[in-house]
Amino acid sequence: LARIALDAMGGDHAPRATVAGALEAIQELDTRHSIQLIGRTDVIERELETLLGGEYVAARKHRGRLELVHAPDVIEMTDKPSVAIRKKSESSMVVGLRMQTEDKSDGFVSAGNTGAQMAASTVLLRLHEGLTRPAISTLFPTALEPIVFLDSGANVDCSADELVQFARLGSVYATDILGRKNPSVGLLSIGEEPEKGNTVVKEAHALLREAGVNFQGNVEGRDLPAGRSDRGPIDVVVCDGFTGNVLLKFYEGIAPLVMGLLAKEGVEKERLARAFGQLDYSSHGGAPLLGVRGVSIICHGKSSPRAIKNAIRLALQAVESQMDEHIGRRLAGNGAKKATA
Amino acid sequence: LARIALDAMGGDHAPRATVAGALEAIQELDTRHSIQLIGRTDVIERELETLLGGEYVAARKHRGRLELVHAPDVIEMTDKPSVAIRKKSESSMVVGLRMQTEDKSDGFVSAGNTGAQMAASTVLLRLHEGLTRPAISTLFPTALEPIVFLDSGANVDCSADELVQFARLGSVYATDILGRKNPSVGLLSIGEEPEKGNTVVKEAHALLREAGVNFQGNVEGRDLPAGRSDRGPIDVVVCDGFTGNVLLKFYEGIAPLVMGLLAKEGVEKERLARAFGQLDYSSHGGAPLLGVRGVSIICHGKSSPRAIKNAIRLALQAVESQMDEHIGRRLAGNGAKKATA
Repeated sequence: LARIALDAMGGDHAPRATVAGALEAIQELDTRHSIQLIGRTDVIERELETLLGGEYVAARKHRGRLELVHAPDVIEMTDKPSVAIRKKSESSMVVGLRMQTEDKSDGFVSAGNTGAQMAASTVLLRLHEGLTRPAISTLFPTALEPIVFLDSGANVDCSADELVQFARLGSVYATDILGRKNPSVGLLSIGEEPEKGNTVVKEAHALLREAGVNFQGNVEGRDLPAGRSDRGPIDVVVCDGFTGNVLLKFYEGIAPLVMGLLAKEGVEKERLARAFGQLDYSSHGGAPLLGVRGVSIICHGKSSPRAIKNAIRLALQAVESQMDEHIGRRLAGNGAKKATA
Repeated sequence: LARIALDAMGGDHAPRATVAGALEAIQELDTRHSIQLIGRTDVIERELETLLGGEYVAARKHRGRLELVHAPDVIEMTDKPSVAIRKKSESSMVVGLRMQTEDKSDGFVSAGNTGAQMAASTVLLRLHEGLTRPAISTLFPTALEPIVFLDSGANVDCSADELVQFARLGSVYATDILGRKNPSVGLLSIGEEPEKGNTVVKEAHALLREAGVNFQGNVEGRDLPAGRSDRGPIDVVVCDGFTGNVLLKFYEGIAPLVMGLLAKEGVEKERLARAFGQLDYSSHGGAPLLGVRGVSIICHGKSSPRAIKNAIRLALQAVESQMDEHIGRRLAGNGAKKATA
């Protein structure tokens, strides 16, 4: 059984969307699991009452699997991360993560301030040895299966070594959560030849050949939507967090542009919504912060109840597959190999 | 009057698409201008005969404005740029650019090997003072007007100073070719705040405030398809050539993915083609290599006759607006200001 702590106060549509997401989750998930709603209990209780009295009346019988944990402080989207986690030590974010260190919870989910979640997760859960920062790993929708795409913005200046660590982290994620066997890893660059790319990428290309991952060489921007390069399907794509973040936000911005053009051509809204729904990575259930000792899932600020539910499911999968432990072993294993080589 | 040299041998569909593009151009453009077809004259003549005897029979009366210039060597897409321009000194690319230095031609257009065109343009035309490399400037289709987007891949590791130079180059391009008055410049980053971004971007942000361009601060990935940030419409976006190239190729790869999803929803192919045609930046007429002393227009390898025609038109606009001279003055002017400051 697993206990997932949800930051009830985090996100643009909190606490409505978060509490509703928790109710969807307890209805759909295995009945052994429970959800801890962290935040101002008076606010959460009021929200619960409204939802259980209306749209979510069917969730009433699962009410016993919801635990309310009081946290009086609220971290705002505009708060500076380092200041927020120090000054708001009784915030839903800090309380939720602290419970994991005290073995009172198994995983944490938030749609709140991403910078604060990164900082609090790093400080409270701590990092696996050999890492300097955690990486945000997004599931990237493609024409084939989703790609594990990292880093999505946690590390803006990356060394070649860090790109190699991302490859290891992403490989474990692809195996444990997506069930990919021996996942293929691509390095994002501007040409498939090893000599193409910027200085860091060229260095990383050489290191990745010896990194103990299933490295398939460079991939280009156009391979991402395709889900494959000329060498076959791709499971994991690594890049620095600056490029990754620019690309993901660009991806987000494309849908309104294309939908606008198609609407002008008279294409029905329902068809557009169905087609673009499949591309909406933010609804896929959050992005795990990989590299921390524990489970911390980052959701998009605009998360819907469904996105929150999917993120809770992802947290459960991470707990049940023991992803964190596998990451620790993978990083230590590769470190050991390197040391004896 | 202007004479535009076209690399008849360059591109995936050459010489058919290039010669056809030249025929479309001489029919549509002002009759004072002429086009120089550079390449193997026997091959070009055979192609001309076929096209003028069939689909392009209406172009016959303009035949006198086409000049054939023999260049026996052909640079292949797979040739190494530096080797190609040295060993194939009688290639269409080298011959076409050399004519510009000898005042026998006013502009050059090619859909051939981009690396070779960059190298040959830099060596033969030379750079304006203060530049280390030229920049490839793409017109990026948006929901509003196209954005001047640079660098698109010529400079993979950029300094903050280089990003500032791109802003100056792009501003002249936006004014001379697109008619934008006092064009607004955005710096591609991962948040609008000046402290967001990687090391180079943060440094560039500070420099751009004093760079003599209409700097509007950082823009994010999602602002590109929108054509605007919260602060208003954007005319020019600068970024390093690694990020730029990844983004453009990603953009190219999106259309097949989305079209596939929409086709599954039963949306008619014609509607899709019309909507996505507007997003096809490769048909917009090529990307000028900014910073060289002269005019060199890079076309996509897959260019259609229409794309070639548009690139020839762009070359003419660059010649007629004296863009090159304006760039020289702009760079020298800002250099001088800096020296006396």
